[in-house]
Amino acid sequence: MTGKETKGETRGEARGTTPPSRDGRIPVAVLGATGAVGQRFVSLLDGHPWFRVTALAASERSAGKRYADVTRWFIDQPMPEWAAAMEVIPCEPGLDARIAFSGLDSSVAGAIESAFARAGCAVVSNSRNHRMDPQVPLLVAEINADHLSLVDEQKVRYGGRGFIVTNPNCSTVGLVMSLAPLHRALGIQKVIASTMQAVSGAGYPGVPSADILDNVIPYIGQEEEKMESETLKILGSARAAATFAVSAHCNRVHVSDGHTLTVSIQTATKATPEEATSILRDAPNPLAGLGLPSLPEKPIVVRGEPDRPQPRFDRMAGKGMTVSVGRVRRCPVLDLKYVALVHNTIRGAAGVAILNAELLKVKGYL
Amino acid sequence: MTGKETKGETRGEARGTTPPSRDGRIPVAVLGATGAVGQRFVSLLDGHPWFRVTALAASERSAGKRYADVTRWFIDQPMPEWAAAMEVIPCEPGLDARIAFSGLDSSVAGAIESAFARAGCAVVSNSRNHRMDPQVPLLVAEINADHLSLVDEQKVRYGGRGFIVTNPNCSTVGLVMSLAPLHRALGIQKVIASTMQAVSGAGYPGVPSADILDNVIPYIGQEEEKMESETLKILGSARAAATFAVSAHCNRVHVSDGHTLTVSIQTATKATPEEATSILRDAPNPLAGLGLPSLPEKPIVVRGEPDRPQPRFDRMAGKGMTVSVGRVRRCPVLDLKYVALVHNTIRGAAGVAILNAELLKVKGYL
Amino acid sequence: MTGKETKGETRGEARGTTPPSRDGRIPVAVLGATGAVGQRFVSLLDGHPWFRVTALAASERSAGKRYADVTRWFIDQPMPEWAAAMEVIPCEPGLDARIAFSGLDSSVAGAIESAFARAGCAVVSNSRNHRMDPQVPLLVAEINADHLSLVDEQKVRYGGRGFIVTNPNCSTVGLVMSLAPLHRALGIQKVIASTMQAVSGAGYPGVPSADILDNVIPYIGQEEEKMESETLKILGSARAAATFAVSAHCNRVHVSDGHTLTVSIQTATKATPEEATSILRDAPNPLAGLGLPSLPEKPIVVRGEPDRPQPRFDRMAGKGMTVSVGRVRRCPVLDLKYVALVHNTIRGAAGVAILNAELLKVKGYL
Amino acid sequence: MTGKETKGETRGEARGTTPPSRDGRIPVAVLGATGAVGQRFVSLLDGHPWFRVTALAASERSAGKRYADVTRWFIDQPMPEWAAAMEVIPCEPGLDARIAFSGLDSSVAGAIESAFARAGCAVVSNSRNHRMDPQVPLLVAEINADHLSLVDEQKVRYGGRGFIVTNPNCSTVGLVMSLAPLHRALGIQKVIASTMQAVSGAGYPGVPSADILDNVIPYIGQEEEKMESETLKILGSARAAATFAVSAHCNRVHVSDGHTLTVSIQTATKATPEEATSILRDAPNPLAGLGLPSLPEKPIVVRGEPDRPQPRFDRMAGKGMTVSVGRVRRCPVLDLKYVALVHNTIRGAAGVAILNAELLKVKGYL
Repeated sequence: MTGKETKGETRGEARGTTPPSRDGRIPVAVLGATGAVGQRFVSLLDGHPWFRVTALAASERSAGKRYADVTRWFIDQPMPEWAAAMEVIPCEPGLDARIAFSGLDSSVAGAIESAFARAGCAVVSNSRNHRMDPQVPLLVAEINADHLSLVDEQKVRYGGRGFIVTNPNCSTVGLVMSLAPLHRALGIQKVIASTMQAVSGAGYPGVPSADILDNVIPYIGQEEEKMESETLKILGSARAAATFAVSAHCNRVHVSDGHTLTVSIQTATKATPEEATSILRDAPNPLAGLGLPSLPEKPIVVRGEPDRPQPRFDRMAGKGMTVSVGRVRRCPVLDLKYVALVHNTIRGAAGVAILNAELLKVKGYL
Repeated sequence: MTGKETKGETRGEARGTTPPSRDGRIPVAVLGATGAVGQRFVSLLDGHPWFRVTALAASERSAGKRYADVTRWFIDQPMPEWAAAMEVIPCEPGLDARIAFSGLDSSVAGAIESAFARAGCAVVSNSRNHRMDPQVPLLVAEINADHLSLVDEQKVRYGGRGFIVTNPNCSTVGLVMSLAPLHRALGIQKVIASTMQAVSGAGYPGVPSADILDNVIPYIGQEEEKMESETLKILGSARAAATFAVSAHCNRVHVSDGHTLTVSIQTATKATPEEATSILRDAPNPLAGLGLPSLPEKPIVVRGEPDRPQPRFDRMAGKGMTVSVGRVRRCPVLDLKYVALVHNTIRGAAGVAILNAELLKVKGYL
Repeated sequence: MTGKETKGETRGEARGTTPPSRDGRIPVAVLGATGAVGQRFVSLLDGHPWFRVTALAASERSAGKRYADVTRWFIDQPMPEWAAAMEVIPCEPGLDARIAFSGLDSSVAGAIESAFARAGCAVVSNSRNHRMDPQVPLLVAEINADHLSLVDEQKVRYGGRGFIVTNPNCSTVGLVMSLAPLHRALGIQKVIASTMQAVSGAGYPGVPSADILDNVIPYIGQEEEKMESETLKILGSARAAATFAVSAHCNRVHVSDGHTLTVSIQTATKATPEEATSILRDAPNPLAGLGLPSLPEKPIVVRGEPDRPQPRFDRMAGKGMTVSVGRVRRCPVLDLKYVALVHNTIRGAAGVAILNAELLKVKGYL
Repeated sequence: MTGKETKGETRGEARGTTPPSRDGRIPVAVLGATGAVGQRFVSLLDGHPWFRVTALAASERSAGKRYADVTRWFIDQPMPEWAAAMEVIPCEPGLDARIAFSGLDSSVAGAIESAFARAGCAVVSNSRNHRMDPQVPLLVAEINADHLSLVDEQKVRYGGRGFIVTNPNCSTVGLVMSLAPLHRALGIQKVIASTMQAVSGAGYPGVPSADILDNVIPYIGQEEEKMESETLKILGSARAAATFAVSAHCNRVHVSDGHTLTVSIQTATKATPEEATSILRDAPNPLAGLGLPSLPEKPIVVRGEPDRPQPRFDRMAGKGMTVSVGRVRRCPVLDLKYVALVHNTIRGAAGVAILNAELLKVKGYL
């Protein structure tokens, strides 16, 4: 651990009064723990050096039962034993947890997350409900850590130590991770993106097999709107969204995990495909050195093959936290075009949320 | 049959010396008959009222054997009995055929097709070799029938009755079918299209299952270049290609048949999505009334559901000859965006070739 | 129509008092019309020469709305226009229908079907609830038409003209269709069958894509028990089930439609694979000549290729009503083994039910 | 490392004159290194504590080029850097390697493997050519280590230190791993197995996507014969194959990796499903304590869920070396039935070969 981290930790403890958990790790809860994103939280928090899961919360229907008995586990790593044995509890504040990771369905997430924030929790949410709230950071740790300045305003609103930090929609994450270095270097003016999204993005049971077998569904409810608005909020300042034009076409394809995006962009400063490739390949990682456990060595890799990235072979790059880019080339209509790939339930959901929480810790917000 | 057709027929016969086949139908050959496109030709020509298959030609390896014995039939209708029993012959001119439908692989199509044209055949080809030749019509019957004026020049070149007419690449067909009415009404200025293409587009054996199962391949060799150049040739005049900007992203997805395209366009005259929908829905069919057997009742349909067209449910619209469009809406970057779907081996390959040949007949070129 | 049919028709009319429908066709209802099997009923009854759909019935939730508005149609032929426009009604007796085709979920089918029978309807059901009732024929028209003698007992039970006839589970149909000729000729003693079943067998939404993509599920609830007991009831007499041993392994695989079965059998009379093939190929069709509209020309076909039947290419044989068999060969453990394929929602569900109803008509039960 | 291992190593060195490789690990070659099984060898040998890859050999076409340049890598872990940089060499004896792991295609494996054995190499082969040779052990390390006694005879045949050891066909491995403990405890008398095999079993390019998408192929050339004969050789003694009856039905399904088998067995000693489950669960691992790096903690696991094992979720059990069994239950025809799952390219091919080689080492055959 670096000195910087220690400092962050100290600052965090100075701010709060959280009793240290038994092993010194921060107690965290997972809300919506039995669902698709909740399972990823459980899987990724298994053995986490900073966070210890003290509560698995879900709907009333599951509450009171063993996690293993109410969860249809679909991750290809075994369910952690500690999780299997835990009793699921209702999603009500008062848990022994400094952080509440939320994978709640958006039909209920809004009110529950607000309640947890009012109760003093740091809510780190993957749900869409609070994403566009002007006081809520829509955070991708490597891109807009400065938006955390909004948290202090929220503490006033919620009357204590509680606040909400969100991460973007899964397909947005893939887009902004690839756009951010180009935006800093060249100034994005226009973006047209067409996605080919995995079924896991729809949760569980999600997409019926009868709908997607030998098929493409060229529509995902609200997804295009999210990509178009969230991208601008993330790439803007804490106070003001960016103002360039974004157009998204969202499609569901027959893939288990991994969203593939084809992207065309126009930039203020013109660059060749080779220059753009270099910008992406050499993008500095502003969080390097902070020792964040979930930070991949390279947030972006650029593949040199003519036909990559591909979901089956590239989604697990950087343990699912690295966005893969390829085929950077001239666009005859805008300026440049390329392919991007993001693991939708890791970098695009639970993984980015945990990374965001790690950032909160070293920045002293916990 | 209409008077116009009869006239065309007469004119055709006046021009040539083809002995009438026994049942009065025009004798036709299929070149590359054992391959993926060749099989579609055989299937679609089964029971054709104007054309009678007199020769199935393929590589030396298959020549001399029964078609049923050398063809791995993969169409979900049974192989026609007449075809099963035919002896495959080599791809050499001198066949008893007025038309040679070519589904040849591009590695050999160029020379063979030229030889057939020199020998007096009307070559109606799905291969790419001659598509961009300035004297060869790149024809989609409903769109640019006027390009047939180039045929007379070719007759000079080939020294007789022979000539070559090509149809575009499968994904291009889906794009130009949807663009054509909009171009006529509004004037296309810019197009960005991203495709999700079926595996049948790669022929047989084509894409290994290990490459596409649970995967997307964001690259198809030469496909983007074809879409970008062929679109302009088709939507231009016989002498001069159109000059607007086209950018294509081509992807292979896990679908058996049916290419799905997401399209963003900018137009000279602005239109609302509702107006554009009406333009597509009400597009006149310039070939209606000619009695072409393969002409669908509606070359384009516009679906009203929020999540259509989809390949599994819409590819067989109009027996595979109708292009389905949906989700016409505003594009925040260009002007309009929509989804289009084309059956790649019917409307996008063998079907459009046969329709083109039917047009040749009624226009008196046979 | 043959004389025999006319006779059947007359006999039917002599027995009942159904007012002839306007066009002379028998009025029929579809119960559970919005579901997977219900949609197949609607599709297969479209244009039926003997039956006219007068009612589409479904749950209270759908009642009162247009069929097109409450049905997520997933058949790759368009929804018939007459069906789209019909108002869905509740599943309550009193409909204008002589036959009620039931595609109801088994959670509700039992009571509703009994109510319709009491109200005088001929209930032709695909649901499992009444299948093993000793008074209810478990009918596959070509195999055990003699079981219809049970119907008269039922009329006593239900106090009038009403009764219930069921068809077997989809995988059972594929098995018994292939076993029946062999049982008649050789005497089946033991059967071990392992299935690879399509997702459509689970209804809609059915199997989540996350469960079956790149996967096999080696378990289908109650399916093995059904195959083991239903097979014996069908291949026995009306009064007594057959007594040989049946063992089923049921598996779900990634196929849209079409159940594939591998079958090993032991027979009392020994036969070579060639003899067994001839028995299957030459099996007489006891219903030939009755003019049943849904009767395929060949209830069974035996394919000669080494690698057939396959669901994608053979499921639609005989418009989905023909069971395809292949690879008849010696079994080193029992006597013979082979592969069978059945279209699970046509021959295995709605199609066999309609065929059964056609048999009821010509036999005078309506 | 245990004393036994050290002893084995010493004994091996006493027998031969192989110069120790630089880091003390045994130099090994991979034959057919660019193919599907060859890639698995490369991947599994990456970082192996006992073996160091000194040669990657393939066809003349690839020889002389960098491995990375001629290999279409399809494993979802990155290609090891040392492998990427190696120059591929022809498959000719004289390599600096004590072991030659062979993933050669059977069209060439026979002669090449014999040549390597004559040249003094220990050939550890996954190819079928020498499997049924009475002097060649068909080895699954945990099951029939005693068959290694055949090796000494071979040394005479090949005139030196060279010999051939093979492993079974992938589907056979899954079957015999599950049968072996039951055979020892109860005495197998009859076996009927039906497989659902992954496409990776067919190598690369292997099964065309057009053949398997939305399909099942109920035939794999020679596979049933292999399962029926190899099973008996493995479960017999070194001199005499077992004599019970085995019947296999082999099918290809739409799965990337992992063969699923449904199995019915008859045993001499009768056992309840619970007893059979205990036999499988408690089967002693005769190789435990030898420190074999590729030996899984549990060669067999028995799952308790009603619907497992499943390829997507269970194939990687024990890093792909554990066979998963489930659903042990009574068979109405034979005695017991169950489901088994094996990772076909790890435990069923390259993994078992490497485990076999590890056994050779500790037993002093190298």
